[in-house]
Amino acid sequence: MAESSTPRHHVVVIGGGFAGLYCAQGLGRSPVDVTLVDRRNFHLFQPLLYQVATGSLSPANIAAPLRTILKRQANVRVWLGEVSDFDTVKKEVALADGSRLPYDTLVVACGSHHHYFGHDAEWEPIAPGLKTIEDATEIRRNILLAFEAAERETDPDKRKRLLTFVIVGGGPTGVELAGAIGELARTTMTREFRAFNPADCRVVVVEGQPRVLTNFHEKLSAKALQALTALGVEVQCDAHVTAVTPTHVEITSDVDKSVRRIETSTVVWAAGVKANPLGRKLVERLGAKADVDRGGRVSVAPDCTVPGFADYFIIGDMMSQKDAAGKPLPGVAPVAMQQGDYVADVIDRRVRGKSPRAAFHYWDKGSMATIGRARAVVETGRIRLSGLIAWLAWLFIHVLYLARFENRLLVVFQWFFAYVTNNRAARIITWMRTEEQPDQKA
Amino acid sequence: MAESSTPRHHVVVIGGGFAGLYCAQGLGRSPVDVTLVDRRNFHLFQPLLYQVATGSLSPANIAAPLRTILKRQANVRVWLGEVSDFDTVKKEVALADGSRLPYDTLVVACGSHHHYFGHDAEWEPIAPGLKTIEDATEIRRNILLAFEAAERETDPDKRKRLLTFVIVGGGPTGVELAGAIGELARTTMTREFRAFNPADCRVVVVEGQPRVLTNFHEKLSAKALQALTALGVEVQCDAHVTAVTPTHVEITSDVDKSVRRIETSTVVWAAGVKANPLGRKLVERLGAKADVDRGGRVSVAPDCTVPGFADYFIIGDMMSQKDAAGKPLPGVAPVAMQQGDYVADVIDRRVRGKSPRAAFHYWDKGSMATIGRARAVVETGRIRLSGLIAWLAWLFIHVLYLARFENRLLVVFQWFFAYVTNNRAARIITWMRTEEQPDQKA
Repeated sequence: MAESSTPRHHVVVIGGGFAGLYCAQGLGRSPVDVTLVDRRNFHLFQPLLYQVATGSLSPANIAAPLRTILKRQANVRVWLGEVSDFDTVKKEVALADGSRLPYDTLVVACGSHHHYFGHDAEWEPIAPGLKTIEDATEIRRNILLAFEAAERETDPDKRKRLLTFVIVGGGPTGVELAGAIGELARTTMTREFRAFNPADCRVVVVEGQPRVLTNFHEKLSAKALQALTALGVEVQCDAHVTAVTPTHVEITSDVDKSVRRIETSTVVWAAGVKANPLGRKLVERLGAKADVDRGGRVSVAPDCTVPGFADYFIIGDMMSQKDAAGKPLPGVAPVAMQQGDYVADVIDRRVRGKSPRAAFHYWDKGSMATIGRARAVVETGRIRLSGLIAWLAWLFIHVLYLARFENRLLVVFQWFFAYVTNNRAARIITWMRTEEQPDQKA
Repeated sequence: MAESSTPRHHVVVIGGGFAGLYCAQGLGRSPVDVTLVDRRNFHLFQPLLYQVATGSLSPANIAAPLRTILKRQANVRVWLGEVSDFDTVKKEVALADGSRLPYDTLVVACGSHHHYFGHDAEWEPIAPGLKTIEDATEIRRNILLAFEAAERETDPDKRKRLLTFVIVGGGPTGVELAGAIGELARTTMTREFRAFNPADCRVVVVEGQPRVLTNFHEKLSAKALQALTALGVEVQCDAHVTAVTPTHVEITSDVDKSVRRIETSTVVWAAGVKANPLGRKLVERLGAKADVDRGGRVSVAPDCTVPGFADYFIIGDMMSQKDAAGKPLPGVAPVAMQQGDYVADVIDRRVRGKSPRAAFHYWDKGSMATIGRARAVVETGRIRLSGLIAWLAWLFIHVLYLARFENRLLVVFQWFFAYVTNNRAARIITWMRTEEQPDQKA
C-alpha cells in the first residue's frame, strides 16, 4: 500500500470471490486504499468446481492467487484472515486472530455455503456439497474410493451399492456433476477394473421441481434430460430426499408421497445454499431495518447498501434484490461480478464528489450448463442452443471469463487434452498427512 | 484378472513406486497373474515433488492413476490397500482391513520415508520431509503461509523470522528445494507484497558433509554452490542441526563445535531416509538370515531375493546391495526402475522354465540436479555439464522418463509456461474440509 502523508479513504472488501474481487479490481484507479480480506489466498472459479470433483481439472487450474491477480494495483493490499465480527461504532472489522482492520467504507461479499434444510449435522458428513476446493477433492475422493472398494467387494449387493451415486439437486451443478460422473464411468474408466464394468454404475439425480434446470426454458430442460439419459443418468423429479445415511437415501415423491429407498454409499449435495452468516451479523451490529430471509440473505437498497447505511455494501450471494420486473436476482456469478463492478463505481464517484450512480441493474446475459463432453444447453434472451454448438459457446464464454486468471491457457489446454484423449488427468485420491490410516470404504 | 480354469502363478507386488510399477509392467506378457497393491491409487513421480512443494506444479501433474497406466495389461489387477503383515506359511499377505491376498511369488517395493535420527516425534511436526503428495502440499502451505503472516506482521524481528527458511540436507532434494524457494521469492513474488520485499527473504541450507551434492564431482558441487548463491541461498556445510523448534533451529558446526541459532518458522527436512519397516518384518516372518541395516534396508542376494528364499524379492529403496566395485547402490529412482525390470524378467524366466538371469547389475547413467530456472548440474561417466545445457539435458531426460505417464505433455507445457511467464501456477493454500479454523502462523 503506497503510504501517503494524509491517510486516504480506506475501503475494506471482505471476500475474494467474484463480487469482492471485481470490486477490488474496479477500485484500482480510485483515490482510495483498498484492503481485500479473505480466508484463502486464492480466487476460485467456482463454476468449474465440478470438474475438480470428477477429476478433469486440478484445483490449481481453477484457482489463482489473489496477490498475483492484484499485484499491479499498488493501492490494493491482500490480507489473509478470517472476519469474525464488526465494530460499527469504531468502524473496525474484527478478525479471528484478534487483530482489527479500520475502514471508511465496508463491502461484504463472503458468498454462500450449502445447507441441508435443517439436517446439517446429520447429512453434511455424508453428503458433501460443492463450494470449496476441499469440498471438490473430498467428493473426488468419495467417488474414486467407491470404485476402488467395488473392485475389492465380492458381495454383489454391496458392490451395487458402492456403484450407485446419488446427486441431490437438478440445477446446473447437479446436472453437470451427474453428467461428468456418467462420462467418467462410461468412457474414462473403461477397462480399468477387473471385477466389474464401470459402465454398469448407477447415477441418480433427485430434483424437487417437475424438471431439471428449472431456470431454463422447458425445451432445454428436455434436451438436458435427454443428454443425461444418454449418459445413463436416472432423473427423479418432483421428489425430495427425506433421509441420508451412510448406506442409503430415502426419496419421497411430492406427487403421491410414495417413498423409495436407494442403496448408495456416495451422495453429493447440490441443492440448497445459505448466505454467509456475517450478513445477518452486520445488520444486527448496525441496528439496520433490513430484511434477512431464511437463507441469510440481506435485502439491500437499490445501490447495494444496507438500507440507511451508505458506507456498508453487501453484494453477491449474500444479498437479495429484485430486478425491474420484481423478480429476485439469482445467486449466480454474473450478478456478483456486475455488483462488484457497480459498487466500485459507486464508491469511486462518491470519493471524487461526482454525481451518484442510478440503481444497480442486472444485465442477464443468459444461462448455460454442460452435460458431459461436448453437450450443453445455452439460453440467452430468446436464443436457445443445445448440443455441440451450445458446448462450444459454453467453452468460449468460460475461456473469456477465465481471462482474468493468468493460467487460462493451461485450463484450455487441459480441457482440450481431456477431451481428445478421453482421459481424466487429476484422478488422484489425496489425504492429509496426519491421517495415518485412510478410511477406505467397506 | 482373466480367470482361467487352472489358476496361474500369482505374483503379488507391494508398492506402485518406480520399482513395483516397473516390475508389474515387466510382467505384462508373462503367463502369470499379477496383483499390484498400493495404499494410493496413483504412481508418483517423486523426483519432481519439490516443484509441487514450491507451487510450480500441481499434484496431479506428477501423479498418474495406477489403473490407467496398467489398464491394457489384462493379467494385472490393481488393489488399493495397506499391507500390515505376512503369513509366510500360508503364503498370504495380510491387509490392514483384515483381508488376505495369497501369492506364489512376492515382490516387496514399498520405498522409504524420511527419518530424523532419533528425533522423529519432536521434529517431524515442525520440519516435514518430502516423500508424498501430502508432504509437498504441507510444505507449500508452510512456505506460503509464512509469506502471508510476514505481510501482516509489524514487529521487524518476527517478520525476519517468518521470512527465513531452513532446509536440512544439501543433497539433490535440498538443493532443488532451496533453489526453487529462492527463485519463488526473487522473481515470482515480485510486487505481490506491500509490507516487505520478498527478495529479502533468507534461505539457508544445512549440510553435514564438506560440500553440497556430495555424490557429484567436486567441480559440479562448486557450480551448484555458485548457482545457489546467485539465488541468495546461504549454504552451511560441515554442520548438523541439533535442535528444531517452532521458532528456531540450532546448528552445530562439525569443525569447531560452535553453535549457531537461526530464527525461523519454516523448516524443511531433506536429510535422512529410512526404509519401510515391512522389509524387516518380512525377514523376521521368514526367519531369514539377512542383514537389516539401521535404515531398515534388507541386504538382498545378487538376484534381489531375500537370501535363501527364492520366492521373495525386495527391491528399490528397501534393499541394500553392492555393485561390482563393492560400493553400495544409491537409493535413487534408476536403481528401483532397473531392479523392477530385472525381477520381472527373473520371474518370467522361472515360470517359463528358462535358464536363470545373471546377478542384477546397476547401469549408472549418471546423476543430475536442478538449481532454479535454467540451471542444473549433470554428471554421466566422465561427462560433466552445468548451466543451461545441463538444465536442457535434465529437462529432456525427465520428459523421457515421464513418457510412462499419460499426462507428460501437460507437465512439459506447464513447465514451459512457468518458465516463460515466471509465474507459479499452483500457489494455492489448501486445507482439509474438517479444519474450520486454519492455523495461520503468527
